[in-house]
Amino acid sequence: MIATPYLLYLGHSTDAADIKTSRGLAVFRPEICVGEFRHDDCSLTLELPRMDFAAARAAGAQTLVLGIANAGGKLGDALIVDALAAMEAGLDIASGLHQRLNAEPRLAEAAARLGRKLHDVREPRPDIPIGNGKPRPGKRLLTVGTDCSVGKMYTTLCLARALEQRGVAADFRATGQTGILIAGDGVPLDAVIADFISGAIEQISPARSDDGWDLIEGQGSLYHPSFAGVSMGLIHGAQPDALVLCHDPVRPHMRGLPHYDLPGIGECIEANLRAARLTSADVRMVGIALNTSAMPEAEAVALCAKTEAEFGLPTSDPYRFGVEAILDRLLGVEAASPVAAQTA
Amino acid sequence: MIATPYLLYLGHSTDAADIKTSRGLAVFRPEICVGEFRHDDCSLTLELPRMDFAAARAAGAQTLVLGIANAGGKLGDALIVDALAAMEAGLDIASGLHQRLNAEPRLAEAAARLGRKLHDVREPRPDIPIGNGKPRPGKRLLTVGTDCSVGKMYTTLCLARALEQRGVAADFRATGQTGILIAGDGVPLDAVIADFISGAIEQISPARSDDGWDLIEGQGSLYHPSFAGVSMGLIHGAQPDALVLCHDPVRPHMRGLPHYDLPGIGECIEANLRAARLTSADVRMVGIALNTSAMPEAEAVALCAKTEAEFGLPTSDPYRFGVEAILDRLLGVEAASPVAAQTA
Repeated sequence: MIATPYLLYLGHSTDAADIKTSRGLAVFRPEICVGEFRHDDCSLTLELPRMDFAAARAAGAQTLVLGIANAGGKLGDALIVDALAAMEAGLDIASGLHQRLNAEPRLAEAAARLGRKLHDVREPRPDIPIGNGKPRPGKRLLTVGTDCSVGKMYTTLCLARALEQRGVAADFRATGQTGILIAGDGVPLDAVIADFISGAIEQISPARSDDGWDLIEGQGSLYHPSFAGVSMGLIHGAQPDALVLCHDPVRPHMRGLPHYDLPGIGECIEANLRAARLTSADVRMVGIALNTSAMPEAEAVALCAKTEAEFGLPTSDPYRFGVEAILDRLLGVEAASPVAAQTA
Repeated sequence: MIATPYLLYLGHSTDAADIKTSRGLAVFRPEICVGEFRHDDCSLTLELPRMDFAAARAAGAQTLVLGIANAGGKLGDALIVDALAAMEAGLDIASGLHQRLNAEPRLAEAAARLGRKLHDVREPRPDIPIGNGKPRPGKRLLTVGTDCSVGKMYTTLCLARALEQRGVAADFRATGQTGILIAGDGVPLDAVIADFISGAIEQISPARSDDGWDLIEGQGSLYHPSFAGVSMGLIHGAQPDALVLCHDPVRPHMRGLPHYDLPGIGECIEANLRAARLTSADVRMVGIALNTSAMPEAEAVALCAKTEAEFGLPTSDPYRFGVEAILDRLLGVEAASPVAAQTA
């Protein structure tokens, strides 16, 4: 429905965490990304060709993806001015921000005048049910986190691909705007009405009987004071058989909240298992995913080994080192090892 | 804004829990309720004069309040037919259901044709911020529950009134449709977008410095698989100094979910304190409120005493026996007693 290929918007961003939608598309769907748009004060790049709107259009781009995430999800003036210029140059606009493109009069007017399309990926479908918590067949894995933006989507996508490579049916279930743009389907969970959070997850991961797995993208953290309610409802709706905890070892404090420290990994594992048991009594934690992108390789390997030993769980940076050990634990095929023997 | 007095709708309801909005208005704002409307198959009454729409209009009623709550909050056909008849008889309509009156074409058409007003109390204000979890001055108490519909609104209103009677400034902060109709203000929390749950509570209970209390109406339960996300965000946004746990001792299972048992009181106290500590490190549980309306008085008194002894917390049915002991614990003025001495 959204015309491809894309031009990815970085704008004035200087915080890598703010461009995660653009980056996710560049990493997981590079074949549909022709370039990136950034202003001179943007210190970030996705290693795509830098283009202005006219050049992108000439290179075949159909849609500018406003792939940035700011707290509150508001359309700022700078963003509106850029989107207007992109439309003038011939591009449609897609956005995962809370504030709808279609609700901004300047954008709606320009779209009507120029015949451009405005796509609001964060608009949930209208038929989401109330969650009922009834046990449903099928195997489901959910990623959870010590914080927001610690690699839950990456980890979930890596797990889905690796399962498929082992010949196991696996479906990535997207719960955020980037995941939806990547998968072509899913629910923008943080835009769902509060009473329907768990029902939305029940809806996107329905009963299945093919012995395959639903890999559900987690959101937020039970320890994030702004968003823990979303995480809680997600956990209950998922009825997960298995959890994977995602963590960013160099995050100095909870995202956006300098007055909040990150929880400890052990404490966070316990809290997530406790929450998940309400709808899935036998849920297991099957691995830890560390985002080590800011660390040298030797240091990253050492940290994974140390974390694995401390918590008795296969630990990896999924994007950097793969997820085979986590899958072995998930599928119950791991070789005997000191760690496995201790914790079996 | 909503014209009073009200005619309270009971419709075809046979489950007392379904008419809690109508009952809340009858109990806490009797001076603005002229009567009740119920069909012959409705087994419930609020002890108000039973009236049809024409009689209610003749008695001065201005608005029919659709004070019923069904899972999902949908407008059924029966409800629409009744609302149309009420409008023909000269009444406006107010509703706290999820599905908006204004979104139902038959109602919108009739309202336009007849000059009647449709009030959707569950429409949140548009300027709710993302929660930030920053410590804010002021004293706040939040009611929490083992389940939905166990008396959190009643308990909160009783606590607010009793505090005022002691000369302590106290404001009831409504988070549900009934509370909003009673208080004239508040947030319909279950209709808020998921990302804004805790921010909505921060907004309705802002910093205060008059040594008074905000009494925040709780919603749902951390143990309800449909709605726990709402409860979690509410707890974090409230930054409560004090919690009161509400419980219905004769509830056979979680509301609407026969496949889920209620949690134990002790377990539920621990879970709520644990969740609340994220934004309010020194939070205390100061009492237990039992809804004993289905029990003989002697049995109710005995159960309160037994519960108080078991958990070391002042325990009462607020509506039946008052909340003085809970306020004593809250304000730190309780007399020495065996229970108090054990748990001080």
